[in-house]
Amino acid sequence: MNTLIVYTHPNHNSLNAAFLEAVRTGLKKNGNSKDVKILDLYKDEFDPRLIFNEEKKRRDMHVDPAMAEYREQLLWADNLVYIYPIWWGRPPAMLLGYFDKLLSTNFAYKSKNEYLTEGLIKGKKAIFISTMKGPTLYPMLLLGNAHKRLMKNAIFKFIGFKKFKFFEFGSMESKTGKQEKALKKVENYFALI
Amino acid sequence: MNTLIVYTHPNHNSLNAAFLEAVRTGLKKNGNSKDVKILDLYKDEFDPRLIFNEEKKRRDMHVDPAMAEYREQLLWADNLVYIYPIWWGRPPAMLLGYFDKLLSTNFAYKSKNEYLTEGLIKGKKAIFISTMKGPTLYPMLLLGNAHKRLMKNAIFKFIGFKKFKFFEFGSMESKTGKQEKALKKVENYFALI
Repeated sequence: MNTLIVYTHPNHNSLNAAFLEAVRTGLKKNGNSKDVKILDLYKDEFDPRLIFNEEKKRRDMHVDPAMAEYREQLLWADNLVYIYPIWWGRPPAMLLGYFDKLLSTNFAYKSKNEYLTEGLIKGKKAIFISTMKGPTLYPMLLLGNAHKRLMKNAIFKFIGFKKFKFFEFGSMESKTGKQEKALKKVENYFALI
Repeated sequence: MNTLIVYTHPNHNSLNAAFLEAVRTGLKKNGNSKDVKILDLYKDEFDPRLIFNEEKKRRDMHVDPAMAEYREQLLWADNLVYIYPIWWGRPPAMLLGYFDKLLSTNFAYKSKNEYLTEGLIKGKKAIFISTMKGPTLYPMLLLGNAHKRLMKNAIFKFIGFKKFKFFEFGSMESKTGKQEKALKKVENYFALI
């Protein structure tokens, strides 16, 4: 069982960094875990701007050499773990731009006919760990759970994933005790996954 | 009536560029229109990565000199027009990162107490023009209209806007006649706004 952790937070001393450590600690205790790779988009200075035009065709994105390493990482992993804060009801632009550039036609999905597509990334599990200021009730009621819908329905189901797990931690800015409990929950999950 | 058009598409010969022209043409016919500014995020090579850490504090973002010009543009305009494609059920990372960096606490909104915030950008109207492959029914049903909720509820209502207009054009890749009709609709709207 190989795991790729995609970490997207600009501050490497943040609570998100503690979740990264919790995932790693859990996986170390897990007998099924083989290799773990970490993609730290901010540390990598990843450029999240998808560019295509008349010179650089969108239909050639799936063989773009600049994204080859990222495509290989995704295919290598059995578990994909995404750790990020919620800003304005959704992940940071950095992570969304990584998806914009990575998940190209004929790599992540293909057209079956004029109306139907088929996801090409199969047999993997996606695990999302997100933190937000304020209660998780707010995005559920006011935003129709847009974050989850965007990640699950708009992206990962579309490209072929069938297994998902969401950890959404709200009001995390305040209580240390609450943070400890959340970190332990994540660690325990990865020890047994 | 001053208008800021924020244009977010990497290909300057795309249908999105035609919508930009339709907005400009409409405004030229509009007796109430004074000045029009265009912010072309791709042409500007805008960097959508929000960075904060222990050296660069998040609480100082509202006076970040690198964003001063963008803050002034927003305050200057009466109408804000956003033109972009829908990728993965929402705007490109480029536009979302522009919001991540621009709409800082104590510029776009402030905390009133531990639980409540107040939007600080008042008396303006936001107009969204988006294009997507496939029918607009798909994001409405499968994504709970996540795009609209993210733009309206998560961002613009939060920062103080009360007036909104959405133009969502689906299945735009196919029929030229359909495109012409959509462009004319937008032009006519801006001629009378």
